[in-house]
Amino acid sequence: MDFDNSTRTELSSLGEFGLINHLTQHIELKNTETVKGVGDDAAVLLLGIKQTVVTTDMLVEGVHFDLTYMPLKHLGYKSVVVNLSDVYAMNAQPKQILVSFALSSRFSLEAVEELYSGMLMACQKYGVDLVGGDTTSSTSGLVISITAIGVADPGTVVYRSGAKETNLLCVSGDLGGAYMGLQILEREKAVYKENPKVQPDLEGKDYILERQLKPEARKDIIDLFARLQIQPTAMIDISDGLASEILHICKNSNVGVELYEEKIPIDPLTYDTAREFGLDPTVCALSGGEDYELLFTIDLKDHEKVKNQLDFTVIGHITNESKGKLLVTKSGTVTELKAQGWDGLKP
Amino acid sequence: MDFDNSTRTELSSLGEFGLINHLTQHIELKNTETVKGVGDDAAVLLLGIKQTVVTTDMLVEGVHFDLTYMPLKHLGYKSVVVNLSDVYAMNAQPKQILVSFALSSRFSLEAVEELYSGMLMACQKYGVDLVGGDTTSSTSGLVISITAIGVADPGTVVYRSGAKETNLLCVSGDLGGAYMGLQILEREKAVYKENPKVQPDLEGKDYILERQLKPEARKDIIDLFARLQIQPTAMIDISDGLASEILHICKNSNVGVELYEEKIPIDPLTYDTAREFGLDPTVCALSGGEDYELLFTIDLKDHEKVKNQLDFTVIGHITNESKGKLLVTKSGTVTELKAQGWDGLKP
Repeated sequence: MDFDNSTRTELSSLGEFGLINHLTQHIELKNTETVKGVGDDAAVLLLGIKQTVVTTDMLVEGVHFDLTYMPLKHLGYKSVVVNLSDVYAMNAQPKQILVSFALSSRFSLEAVEELYSGMLMACQKYGVDLVGGDTTSSTSGLVISITAIGVADPGTVVYRSGAKETNLLCVSGDLGGAYMGLQILEREKAVYKENPKVQPDLEGKDYILERQLKPEARKDIIDLFARLQIQPTAMIDISDGLASEILHICKNSNVGVELYEEKIPIDPLTYDTAREFGLDPTVCALSGGEDYELLFTIDLKDHEKVKNQLDFTVIGHITNESKGKLLVTKSGTVTELKAQGWDGLKP
Repeated sequence: MDFDNSTRTELSSLGEFGLINHLTQHIELKNTETVKGVGDDAAVLLLGIKQTVVTTDMLVEGVHFDLTYMPLKHLGYKSVVVNLSDVYAMNAQPKQILVSFALSSRFSLEAVEELYSGMLMACQKYGVDLVGGDTTSSTSGLVISITAIGVADPGTVVYRSGAKETNLLCVSGDLGGAYMGLQILEREKAVYKENPKVQPDLEGKDYILERQLKPEARKDIIDLFARLQIQPTAMIDISDGLASEILHICKNSNVGVELYEEKIPIDPLTYDTAREFGLDPTVCALSGGEDYELLFTIDLKDHEKVKNQLDFTVIGHITNESKGKLLVTKSGTVTELKAQGWDGLKP
C-alpha cells in the first residue's frame, strides 16, 4: 500500500507555482456554474437563484490519518468525499471544491501527485470542479483542508434543526464498518512493527477496509429523496458516530428521541469482526464514526415512501424534549443515549 | 506581545463541540446573503444573480508566522485580511469566511480565544460573516486555513489575464514595508535570544511593524474603482512581492512589461530601515512581499481618473509579449525582471 519511491522529484525543484501548474494542468471544468477555476486570486462561480451551501474540513496527519496504512491516493479521495458528505447532508448538490495542503520536504512530487489524483478521482465521480486552493510547506506532517460548495433550490435545504415530535429517525446504509476496518488496520500495523516479515492478514475483510480507506458520500440518497419527493425534516452525516449525530439533531431541534438498538443496521462482517475483537457491535455503530451515512428524520406521512427502500432503515422516532434521549436495548432496557466525547485534544 | 497565561483552561475540558459553541456564540450575521451561519453541516448563502468569488489560504506555524513576536490576536486578524485581499483583488466584495484551525494541546482556551477574537475583529471591520469552519487537534504547531467568499456584479470581476499592450501598470499604497517590519522583528528576536533582559528596540518603527503584524486589505481601493468608474483590465494582490505578481499578470495575459524602478512607491521609513540593514530598498519592494497592496492595469484612457489619486502610483506600462519583462533602473539600465522563487519547500 505504499507508493513507488524509485523516481523521486523534489518539490523544491518546481517551486509553489510550478507545483500548482503541474497538478492542475489537466483539470477540466464540468459545471456551468463554474465561471473560472484555478489560476487567479479566487475562483468565480455563478450560482443563479439557487441557495449556496459551503462547508470545510481539516485533516491532520497523526490525528485523522496514518500514512502507514493509508495510501495517499485513498487519502486524497477520502478527504474530498468527507467534505461532499457534508454538502449532501444539507440535501444539496456539491459543485466545486477548494483544496489546500501543507507538506514537508519528506513528500516528493510523486507523492503529492498520488494524493492529488485521488482528489481528482473523487471530483470526477461526484461531478465536482476543483476550482482553487493553496499549497504550502509544513514543518512536520501533512495537513489537508478542503472547502466544498454546493447548491440547492430554495426551500429544499435540510438543517439539523427541523426534527419534530413523532418524526421517524432513519439512517442510510449500515454502520460501524469504517471503525472495524480501522481496528483491522491498527492490528496489522502492530503486527508489522513486531515483525516486518509477516504479511498483513486482511483476507475477507474487503468491505470494512473499503469503508475505512475509500468511503463514499451518499449522493444516491439525495437523488432518491428528489425522486421519491421526500423532504427530510432534519439531516446530518455520520462522521463522529451515530450517537453523537443523533444528539446533534436533538439539541438543534429541541427534541427527544427513542433509538432502538435492534434496528441499527450493522453488516454481518462488521458484526463478526467486532466480536472477533471482543467489541460490542452496537457500541461500534454508536461511537465508531467515519461511516459517512446520512442520518435524517422524516414526517410520519412519508413512512410509506421509505419503508420498501433497502438503503433506508427506520431506527427510532423523535419525542418531546422532556422525554430525554433514550436507547432501547435489545433486552428491552431503556438507557440514556450518550456520545463518546471528542478527546483528540487531551494532552 | 504575549498573552496572559495566568488563567489557563485546557481545551480538552470543552471538547470540540464545546469549543466551537464557546467561540461562535456571539457571532452576529451582518449580510442578508447569509441565510445560515455556523452550526450545521454547511453554511447556506443566497447569492442572487451576482457572481461568486471564492478563495482559500493556509498559514502554518514556523513557515508563515512565528508566535515569538506575532501576538495571536494579530495573527487571527492578519489571517483573515490575507484572504479578503484575494477577494478584493478580483474587484469583488467579501461577504463570508470559513475558518479552520489545527492546534496542539500547548494552546489553552484563552490562547484560542485571542486568535479567534482577532479573526472576528477583521470580520467586523470588513463587514464579513464568519459562517463555518473546523477545529481539530494537531500533533505539533498551529495551522490556520481560511476560505473567503465574495460577490461581484457580472462583468465587473477582474482577472489576472486581461492586461493589454499600452495599458498602464499601477499599484496602490507603498511597498516593502511589511518585509522591513519582519526584519526588525527577526533582529529583535535574535537579540532577545542572546540576552532575554534586553528590551526590544522597536522605537519609531511603528508603520513598518504594523505593515507586518496588522496589514489591511484594500477595500477602499475597490470602492474607489466603483466611484471613479474604473474597470481595471487585470489585477492581483501583492503577497509574494511586486516582481512575482507582475510576472503573474504578464504570464496570464501573454504580455510584456516595462517597470520603472524610480516610480516604485516606497515609504521613507521603509527606505531608511532597508539602508540601515544594508539592503536595497527596491529589492525589498520587488521581492519582500506581504504588502497586500493591489497591483492592476488600466486602459490609457483611464489615466486622467487615477493621476490625482494619492493612493495610486503608475509604475510602468504593458508591452507586447515579445518585448519581454523589463526593469528600467534609476540609472537608466534595462534588466530582466525576475522573481525570487518560492523556496519554502527547500529541504
